[in-house]
Amino acid sequence: MELKENERIDDLEYKGLKIIQNENYFCFGMDSILLSDFAKEIKKDSTILDIGTGTGIISILLSKKTECKKIYAIEVQTEIAEMAQRSVKMNNLEDKIELINDNIINIEKYLKNNSMNAIVTNPPYKKKDTGVKNENMNKLISRHEITADLEDFISKGSAVLKDKGSFYMVNRPERLADIISLFRKYKIEPKKLRMVYPKINNKPNLILIKGIKNAKPFLEIEKPLIVYKEDNNYTDEILKIYNKK
Amino acid sequence: MELKENERIDDLEYKGLKIIQNENYFCFGMDSILLSDFAKEIKKDSTILDIGTGTGIISILLSKKTECKKIYAIEVQTEIAEMAQRSVKMNNLEDKIELINDNIINIEKYLKNNSMNAIVTNPPYKKKDTGVKNENMNKLISRHEITADLEDFISKGSAVLKDKGSFYMVNRPERLADIISLFRKYKIEPKKLRMVYPKINNKPNLILIKGIKNAKPFLEIEKPLIVYKEDNNYTDEILKIYNKK
Repeated sequence: MELKENERIDDLEYKGLKIIQNENYFCFGMDSILLSDFAKEIKKDSTILDIGTGTGIISILLSKKTECKKIYAIEVQTEIAEMAQRSVKMNNLEDKIELINDNIINIEKYLKNNSMNAIVTNPPYKKKDTGVKNENMNKLISRHEITADLEDFISKGSAVLKDKGSFYMVNRPERLADIISLFRKYKIEPKKLRMVYPKINNKPNLILIKGIKNAKPFLEIEKPLIVYKEDNNYTDEILKIYNKK
Repeated sequence: MELKENERIDDLEYKGLKIIQNENYFCFGMDSILLSDFAKEIKKDSTILDIGTGTGIISILLSKKTECKKIYAIEVQTEIAEMAQRSVKMNNLEDKIELINDNIINIEKYLKNNSMNAIVTNPPYKKKDTGVKNENMNKLISRHEITADLEDFISKGSAVLKDKGSFYMVNRPERLADIISLFRKYKIEPKKLRMVYPKINNKPNLILIKGIKNAKPFLEIEKPLIVYKEDNNYTDEILKIYNKK
């Protein structure tokens, strides 16, 4: 496996999976690991769309955490999509994961409406004109709503999602009201929500949310997901998610 | 103080406050105590509307937990409004709390639009046609959306709320998506949300939410409020809210 400049291979420590990352691009974090775990209930033979796949981390993990049939992974940045494609090849997942190098707003060129069983996405968390901007363009696009915004992710995801299909997202707590409003605008009913608290006495820094297309309203909020114990070691649940326990 | 049949006087163990309750009506619970604590930040000289006051618990507590100027407390059930009125009198709060015995949908008869600094409400949690119905009519109206629904509470509350005024609500987790959607529909931006977990490994059974009229979107989710420790005793935070610590 030949690597490009600034690239490295990371071991995902899960069923032999590995991934290529580039330190000049956005590297995956705990959010993607938690989303993959949150979405591992996706049923056998499902067809999944991963919107804004980046390194491909969520698709690569879901290929082994579920018994899905096919994952379409769309990524707007050409060099990052190409790197994810090499990770897919390195893991011999070309039959299962298909990379699409385009903007989510063009998804209808590739997938039919009402065709997916599930959507997974770790979208850019920040609005276009907020936060630090002294980043390189690659990281900026991964973190901010530059090429597409939350409404694009949700409206396009909903369009290709089947009736009663599931939409899984990780995001920051401050976007929860936006997510719920946009989910409902595009007929995705919020059904499950989990708060991720760094410690028991902290504010949450992530939320995991599942909506179902055309479902009846009734939101279940799950028990808190706490990352660190008081002694700063990972909690048992996090160790289990990381396959260390 | 003369009591009616099935009535009792409970000591609120806070600044000498007492309250009349009737076992045939809905008795207040921890939800109202927690909402009063959540809303105790309401500023000096504020004018407050308490929608669906029931026993009057939230208004009575807020009269001493804040330095507000005036609380209007509306209750649709005549016998319950009358009982709350006697609790107000018993606490010598007639100058501060004004009972209105009517349906919230008629609030414009009593209050001007854009006139309140804050709204507080512990509304009926359940939809009209859900849950157990073998209750007496008083309890049914307190628990279910019979005489008014969540949209009435939010639309009418928003109408009388000033620009940048605060709207505080306690409810069940399963209504969060409804609350956020309706808040936004009526220009109340969700700004603060707190989950109440019975224990650290439980799902939440209550949510506390604050919205601000015409504010910019940015939701802050607070640290978890945990009620019981592993040994089934109250946590320090709950003891503090109950003024026991």
